[in-house]
Amino acid sequence: MTLFSATDLPGGIVEDTENLTRTNFERLRTLSDRFKYIAWSCKEILDNHDGIYYLTTANGMKYQTFCDMNTAGGGWTLVASVHENSIYGRCTVGDCWSSQQGNNPNLPDGDGNWSNRNTFGLVERSLCFQNPGYYDIAAKDVSVWHVPNNFPMEHWNLAAILRYHTENNFLRLYGGNLFNLFKQFPVRYNIGSCSNRGPAIPIVYDHGNRESTRNLYGPKSRNEFDPGFITFRAINNELGAMAICSGVKPRGCNSEHYCIGGGGYFHPDQCGDFPSFDWDRLGRDQGWSASKEMTESAVLLFYR
Amino acid sequence: MTLFSATDLPGGIVEDTENLTRTNFERLRTLSDRFKYIAWSCKEILDNHDGIYYLTTANGMKYQTFCDMNTAGGGWTLVASVHENSIYGRCTVGDCWSSQQGNNPNLPDGDGNWSNRNTFGLVERSLCFQNPGYYDIAAKDVSVWHVPNNFPMEHWNLAAILRYHTENNFLRLYGGNLFNLFKQFPVRYNIGSCSNRGPAIPIVYDHGNRESTRNLYGPKSRNEFDPGFITFRAINNELGAMAICSGVKPRGCNSEHYCIGGGGYFHPDQCGDFPSFDWDRLGRDQGWSASKEMTESAVLLFYR
Amino acid sequence: MTLFSATDLPGGIVEDTENLTRTNFERLRTLSDRFKYIAWSCKEILDNHDGIYYLTTANGMKYQTFCDMNTAGGGWTLVASVHENSIYGRCTVGDCWSSQQGNNPNLPDGDGNWSNRNTFGLVERSLCFQNPGYYDIAAKDVSVWHVPNNFPMEHWNLAAILRYHTENNFLRLYGGNLFNLFKQFPVRYNIGSCSNRGPAIPIVYDHGNRESTRNLYGPKSRNEFDPGFITFRAINNELGAMAICSGVKPRGCNSEHYCIGGGGYFHPDQCGDFPSFDWDRLGRDQGWSASKEMTESAVLLFYR
Repeated sequence: MTLFSATDLPGGIVEDTENLTRTNFERLRTLSDRFKYIAWSCKEILDNHDGIYYLTTANGMKYQTFCDMNTAGGGWTLVASVHENSIYGRCTVGDCWSSQQGNNPNLPDGDGNWSNRNTFGLVERSLCFQNPGYYDIAAKDVSVWHVPNNFPMEHWNLAAILRYHTENNFLRLYGGNLFNLFKQFPVRYNIGSCSNRGPAIPIVYDHGNRESTRNLYGPKSRNEFDPGFITFRAINNELGAMAICSGVKPRGCNSEHYCIGGGGYFHPDQCGDFPSFDWDRLGRDQGWSASKEMTESAVLLFYR
Repeated sequence: MTLFSATDLPGGIVEDTENLTRTNFERLRTLSDRFKYIAWSCKEILDNHDGIYYLTTANGMKYQTFCDMNTAGGGWTLVASVHENSIYGRCTVGDCWSSQQGNNPNLPDGDGNWSNRNTFGLVERSLCFQNPGYYDIAAKDVSVWHVPNNFPMEHWNLAAILRYHTENNFLRLYGGNLFNLFKQFPVRYNIGSCSNRGPAIPIVYDHGNRESTRNLYGPKSRNEFDPGFITFRAINNELGAMAICSGVKPRGCNSEHYCIGGGGYFHPDQCGDFPSFDWDRLGRDQGWSASKEMTESAVLLFYR
Repeated sequence: MTLFSATDLPGGIVEDTENLTRTNFERLRTLSDRFKYIAWSCKEILDNHDGIYYLTTANGMKYQTFCDMNTAGGGWTLVASVHENSIYGRCTVGDCWSSQQGNNPNLPDGDGNWSNRNTFGLVERSLCFQNPGYYDIAAKDVSVWHVPNNFPMEHWNLAAILRYHTENNFLRLYGGNLFNLFKQFPVRYNIGSCSNRGPAIPIVYDHGNRESTRNLYGPKSRNEFDPGFITFRAINNELGAMAICSGVKPRGCNSEHYCIGGGGYFHPDQCGDFPSFDWDRLGRDQGWSASKEMTESAVLLFYR
């Protein structure tokens, strides 16, 4: 077999007609690209090393992201990261998963990033991070890592204070990814009452357990959720909508203390990517306030 | 012809001296890159499929963007997108084409992105999008698509509510792109009066017509523009400067209702990427207010 | 030598078994990538042309940046750029090197970008620019270019109003880059008094000299610094922390007039990436105000 017909040119290096070279190179490029960028998600890459890989969207956009190639068989694609850049900023710059436009009832969806195709940031944790995989990949399950802010990628796995995944293929019921799930369950102020929350999916722990999950949130919060789940689109007493309750299923209606992301309007002093995790004092694990570990970690979202 | 001189090694796979391999590979890489990234704009790519391609700037920066390979012969490069992320935010975060620093007479140019080399966003519609092609490509004409927010790229063409292009090579007179055009016609508060607007160029419709263009703007606006043009650097009664009047040529001086982008200072309650498209109520197509379709669409700018 | 065993297929182009082709291509890809992305920094690239190159981080992230291949032997990697997008914005959008969250004592570190792994912007000067090289490269020295805003990359060298580098390998003492240096000397409000500044390193001028450096800052500032140094982590009378005093070593404690970047809290009307360069009037080179040239230039940071 051969890619290029070989002749006995003395130099052995290309020097021939432009047309022939170009033809061969275009075939080479096409094939080379095909192998280089063949994967639509980490799941299709046959490799068991965690790290950065190139992926391609259905419409041909290439991007780099982190693949977790080990958890439960591997093949998990990092698609988004939510963290609180400044708990004091109430829906200000950096609150990309709720609103950067202030706390405003005229903006019930806030920045709307849970259900639009905006992409932003680089994989190594910009202010906000969401890649095209978020809406492009057809997935079955999610995995979530809570990684303390500012750890290098090679230590994310070990540094994580909580890691878990789902294994019941629930995303098949909701369009194959969170982009589509949140179309069905809009993260929007005043879309319904506390009883109108979206699905709560059982999780399998990869690091941590139900008890450690409970302790990541405030003592008062622990009375109103069940650990062992990931819940989508929670609604609180004040009709504010939150996107994800990581590790828990709410029983009560004060979900602003243990659910993240959100629409564009909350009760004053709650708006933000980690809406009211600092209610009784930031990072002190008292009253409704979440633990310091939780507040100072990014929530990494993976698909498979 | 051959790229690599072939010998009769049993395995047939490289195993030879590093130096020879490196030499060959560098030649291969150079040639391969040349074909892969040879294009400075979509016009130079011989392909009739719309989609994402790699381009390279004059100084060697590689980037991906969308090429429209069909309209009027194809070869159109997407270089920027303007949309209103929040009509309620008056020159706040996301108003990248006017000012993200508030409505401020000390900032007559606002963020200044019409005439600087800032680049931001990814092609699949970030909060703001402008690639190096905006200032790097030497073009003759522009094409504009008004695409409803949040459509996937493969449906942009069909989803667009308005598509048109120029065909008189006008950019040749203004430095080959909008970056240079706006150097000549600064988008700056208080740079002149309403009569000092920049060029109005006749357009050829690819989807829509003069009548449908008229109806995208408010009933009162329709009395003071002529459809069938794209106009650059409009100025309103209050001396606010706008960058583009898409589809129309102003006759009157209330251009804040039908022109987009702008400098950093406007009459209060007008500042923003779609300055005052909501004057008489957002998206209701009444009074001076533009239609819902217009307000909820991105304006994609192409060069050829 | 050969990469692909050549047989005498009539067409001479690939048509053979998928497996064999794939094997060869993966080897080709691996080798090709190795040469293409082998460099961890510009220093490792054997080329004497300034321009854009691809680099790779230790964990495999590929990115493009500008290499200065000429100054003092070349091999300088551009890792960050600091400029003042709007001197009127006091720690607002675009003040990425101080705080985009307002002037707030609850945020002593501000956005914290001097000592975290956020990356943002593209090399051709976005609102803010920092690439992974900032924290990933192990360097010995820094080089700094002050380039007037909005010059194209190919003219940066000639357009610069000041260029200098260090040559005493000081970064070896501080962890090999500024990311690590600023871990040791946090850019944080109230971390110490004016006498607690970080290291001041002697510089070698590549364009400009001590006298021209003095004249870039305000007449009053000139009385309280010594030119011929780059200083890290200055602290002013009001306990505000600044990251870099470019070209000078402070003797006094009004460093907000001649040092850049900072934590999240300053005396009112000082907060910003160029904190108080406009104290006595913007860009007028009078009192404490820096020169117009300085205020309207970006500060490009290189490592080697």
